[in-house]
Amino acid sequence: MKVLVDLCIVPLGVGVSLSPYIAACEKVLTEAGLKTALHSYGTDIEGEWDAVFAAIKRCHEVVHEMGAPRITTTVKLGTRTDRVQTMEDKIESVKRKL
Amino acid sequence: MKVLVDLCIVPLGVGVSLSPYIAACEKVLTEAGLKTALHSYGTDIEGEWDAVFAAIKRCHEVVHEMGAPRITTTVKLGTRTDRVQTMEDKIESVKRKL
Amino acid sequence: MKVLVDLCIVPLGVGVSLSPYIAACEKVLTEAGLKTALHSYGTDIEGEWDAVFAAIKRCHEVVHEMGAPRITTTVKLGTRTDRVQTMEDKIESVKRKL
Amino acid sequence: MKVLVDLCIVPLGVGVSLSPYIAACEKVLTEAGLKTALHSYGTDIEGEWDAVFAAIKRCHEVVHEMGAPRITTTVKLGTRTDRVQTMEDKIESVKRKL
Repeated sequence: MKVLVDLCIVPLGVGVSLSPYIAACEKVLTEAGLKTALHSYGTDIEGEWDAVFAAIKRCHEVVHEMGAPRITTTVKLGTRTDRVQTMEDKIESVKRKL
Repeated sequence: MKVLVDLCIVPLGVGVSLSPYIAACEKVLTEAGLKTALHSYGTDIEGEWDAVFAAIKRCHEVVHEMGAPRITTTVKLGTRTDRVQTMEDKIESVKRKL
Repeated sequence: MKVLVDLCIVPLGVGVSLSPYIAACEKVLTEAGLKTALHSYGTDIEGEWDAVFAAIKRCHEVVHEMGAPRITTTVKLGTRTDRVQTMEDKIESVKRKL
Repeated sequence: MKVLVDLCIVPLGVGVSLSPYIAACEKVLTEAGLKTALHSYGTDIEGEWDAVFAAIKRCHEVVHEMGAPRITTTVKLGTRTDRVQTMEDKIESVKRKL
């Protein structure tokens, strides 16, 4: 089952500068071979369900190892059985109608 | 790694009445042995990471099997390494300060 | 336009103990006369659009005034024109199908 | 108060093809003079709080007028008092650490 995800990981108890943690997660996702697109309030991810969620778990582990005692994450995730749809498809589909 | 989750599964392409799908997911979560609390915009879940995310995957599979061609889900999830915190702890912690 | 909301406010830069900030927001919501239900990963709110979003803005202002330099909030919000639906209706609708 | 938002509007009861509704919302946001960036699971928005939330309300009104009887929306929103931060700043801040 393929999934499109928007991942937003927020470490708590480490001050207000979160970019080192987000950058570490980007590396986790890339090393997992996932297709990603960083945007200003999260990272869009495309991949197989198990690979994507294994990588999200690894992100939590890495951010805790970096010293964050608490993490709150927001994830949007979409699956569909009617057709295959990539991250680019979704954007193009909207842009064609503008 | 223990996780607290707020799960909100939204089947698309099946009209506006979503409760049969939500009820099916409740059964999936309960049968997985997870602690849950239904609220009016989702279901709070407490459990081990792998068990929780296996159940969420199963929810997507079941909702697709029920006929929904597309699903969009919003998940909030929290982990912490500084201490153990249950769903009830979080609510009590706020209520003590009201 | 009536709206049902799930509000989860996360102050950053104030350590890992967030309950004083959540409690302050609960007071803002209650003083605004909104119907609310605290759950373990947020607060469900029912009310008129303008009143609800004025209160959410006030929550951000209050949490900043309490000393949080940064806030990240996740909101789920639902509107419908086909019928009136309360927070309790949504829960009952699911429970009848369990 | 300036706010950065990730907006994901999901019309229900209109089938699985949501792009016409998303495109209509893009127009609402642009006509409101807001800075936006479409990504594959939502639209990032930067602006003053009142202008942003007036536009989000207008999106709900427009999507209902287009025939959607029900809408569920997920919003992430961030405010900060310590410094001004644009959508581009957030992305650059992460990329510098990769």
